[in-house]
Amino acid sequence: MIDFPGLQEIVTQTPTKILMLVVDGLGGLPNPDSRRSELEAANTPNLDRLAGQSACGLTTPVLPGVTPGSGPGHLALFGYDPVKYLVGRGVLEALGIGVAVGQGDVAIRGNLCTVDGDGRITDRRAGRIDSAESIPLCAALDGIQVDGMDLSVYPVRDYRFALVLRGEGLSEQVSETDPLVEGALPLEARALAPEAAATARVVNRFVAEARGVLNGRATANMLTLRGFSRLPSLPSMVDRYRLTPAAIAAYPMYRGLAGLVGMQVIPTGAAFADEIQTLRSVWSAHDFFYLHYKPADAAGEDGDFRAKVHALEELDLHIPMLLETGPDVLIVAGDHSTPAVMAGHSWHPVPLLIHSRWTIGEGVDAFTERACAEGSIGRIPAVNLMLMAMAHAGKLTRFGP
Amino acid sequence: MIDFPGLQEIVTQTPTKILMLVVDGLGGLPNPDSRRSELEAANTPNLDRLAGQSACGLTTPVLPGVTPGSGPGHLALFGYDPVKYLVGRGVLEALGIGVAVGQGDVAIRGNLCTVDGDGRITDRRAGRIDSAESIPLCAALDGIQVDGMDLSVYPVRDYRFALVLRGEGLSEQVSETDPLVEGALPLEARALAPEAAATARVVNRFVAEARGVLNGRATANMLTLRGFSRLPSLPSMVDRYRLTPAAIAAYPMYRGLAGLVGMQVIPTGAAFADEIQTLRSVWSAHDFFYLHYKPADAAGEDGDFRAKVHALEELDLHIPMLLETGPDVLIVAGDHSTPAVMAGHSWHPVPLLIHSRWTIGEGVDAFTERACAEGSIGRIPAVNLMLMAMAHAGKLTRFGP
Repeated sequence: MIDFPGLQEIVTQTPTKILMLVVDGLGGLPNPDSRRSELEAANTPNLDRLAGQSACGLTTPVLPGVTPGSGPGHLALFGYDPVKYLVGRGVLEALGIGVAVGQGDVAIRGNLCTVDGDGRITDRRAGRIDSAESIPLCAALDGIQVDGMDLSVYPVRDYRFALVLRGEGLSEQVSETDPLVEGALPLEARALAPEAAATARVVNRFVAEARGVLNGRATANMLTLRGFSRLPSLPSMVDRYRLTPAAIAAYPMYRGLAGLVGMQVIPTGAAFADEIQTLRSVWSAHDFFYLHYKPADAAGEDGDFRAKVHALEELDLHIPMLLETGPDVLIVAGDHSTPAVMAGHSWHPVPLLIHSRWTIGEGVDAFTERACAEGSIGRIPAVNLMLMAMAHAGKLTRFGP
Repeated sequence: MIDFPGLQEIVTQTPTKILMLVVDGLGGLPNPDSRRSELEAANTPNLDRLAGQSACGLTTPVLPGVTPGSGPGHLALFGYDPVKYLVGRGVLEALGIGVAVGQGDVAIRGNLCTVDGDGRITDRRAGRIDSAESIPLCAALDGIQVDGMDLSVYPVRDYRFALVLRGEGLSEQVSETDPLVEGALPLEARALAPEAAATARVVNRFVAEARGVLNGRATANMLTLRGFSRLPSLPSMVDRYRLTPAAIAAYPMYRGLAGLVGMQVIPTGAAFADEIQTLRSVWSAHDFFYLHYKPADAAGEDGDFRAKVHALEELDLHIPMLLETGPDVLIVAGDHSTPAVMAGHSWHPVPLLIHSRWTIGEGVDAFTERACAEGSIGRIPAVNLMLMAMAHAGKLTRFGP
């Protein structure tokens, strides 16, 4: 949460509705050939017109130069300082496949790997075996029993899986078993705090059993464990902002993140049109809506400039439907940039527009990185966006007499 | 104060003089008809010319999206972190009418209200009775005696008054008596900390006596109390900046705020021309001058776009007189925006110019929100402005070897 103790005193409930559209990986970089970014190359008349009627700017997801994962990128947009509120790798991996993680559980990210006759790792990703091969292996690992512990293995994708320990007295203060280099032996799990001794023992026994289950295979004959983590304790958006927030996102990880901050997660179909239909169906029941659009990030991660342009153009076609719902405040933001030329997330500031009764436009004629840099909002830390959203919605009274 | 422990080591005394003109409610928003803001609509050749010879930018008063009251807005300009240094509502109300509040005193904001036969509040503002009616009521309340406590009631305006308790062992940790909704009984004052028990008892006895004094009236037959507060402990600008600061402001509240941060508050006439005359008369005796211009805010609060334009044009006529005093650094800033279209304070960044021997201008051709956004200073937190002022005045040496 932003470091602003006075917030509670100025938050006020009103009937106004805020719609925050998060375009995953929204920002980009110019393509060396055209010298235009994905947003500049895309034909997005609806977004451009909306920008012309809005206040525009750029958000810095974490800090200049810092490339966020999806967790910090989203937490900042929801008003949680991403430097302070951390979601562990194991928890995020479990949330990403829709696995429930309860208070007290420990979630762990696992990799299948390949070891030689001496037990030394020859391939940390087991030749990136595909899911068809790894799913039955995960099922076999899931059958391992240790001391009656509730211990579940879930396939994620290819060589990756999630391990969730459930029960009393667990601790996430356990060291990782991946040596991070090939040619080394997998490490023992060690307790990093006295209260983690039992958990480390369970983990090592699980690994020993797993070695037996996978024994005899030429590849994927061993595993490593990383990112031991528990659910973070995040203040609820309900309490902090006095909102009744709803999340509409098709991908499990974003649903999980939204649940962590107290949003009601609405079941929805996978296509963006389905998400909009879902939005309509719950419109009267909430006053804040987080709506997630994934394809721009996926195309950027693939390094496919044209696919990202296409994803943005597809989004643009849906903007009129969003406006028809009649939000008092419509925000179009991104959790981070995913420039196709980098084929991954990046640290670059992300275009932002806020449309409300207090915005009549300011001469910005396109929704692009360059045009938004000229907008009246300027560059703000993403963690401050919720304050802007609340202000435009009339949900913040004056601070101080 | 800005969070910069190294400040003390780099502050240095010089004969240079800083004049900080604070235009209350300076920033605005475009009028939907003309699409021009108050500053853009106003004919301000002197300010525009000055901007052309200055470094320009925008200040964020508190945080993006946060609308400050006059207290936080001014404290930030004087270099005090407005999130950390809070001035209570009761103290500000007392300062606003020129009532002295001493260390240890408790100042309270009071409202006259109307209750029915059961004692339930039917009008929290007593029909907004005018001052002619409320002044004699305040005089009667001022006559109430409780345990020999020094207890004074001062009329503020209409239904509002200030109550100041003076004496030993007082505490501001007392709950408010205004239930904030009509149809409810006024609340008992409760001690929120053990040391506040005696103060709460005095307050409740005062309220009981007041009920008797006001009894029999059809309206304004009861009162509520809010904003129990003491003088905040603010480091003095004299110590922090090694300045001899002077405040020239006609309105009592701004005079009170300036006194809180250690400025010498100079008696002055009410018109801006009087303030400038006062400035001239004390020019040789100080090296920092806070000069306050109120009419722009008043017009913005009234939602009167044309009046605010006029107030800015009036200000502009006085700029040559300010330049004639020959300040080494002239700053034109605002404590917050007061867009006429919003008829109130707002969160929007505020235009800023700094003129000194180190500024020869940078192509900004007007003193407006849009033009200042293009200036070399960019957007800075208002709390950092004093550093800029000191730097331009040659009063800050190099930080670190």
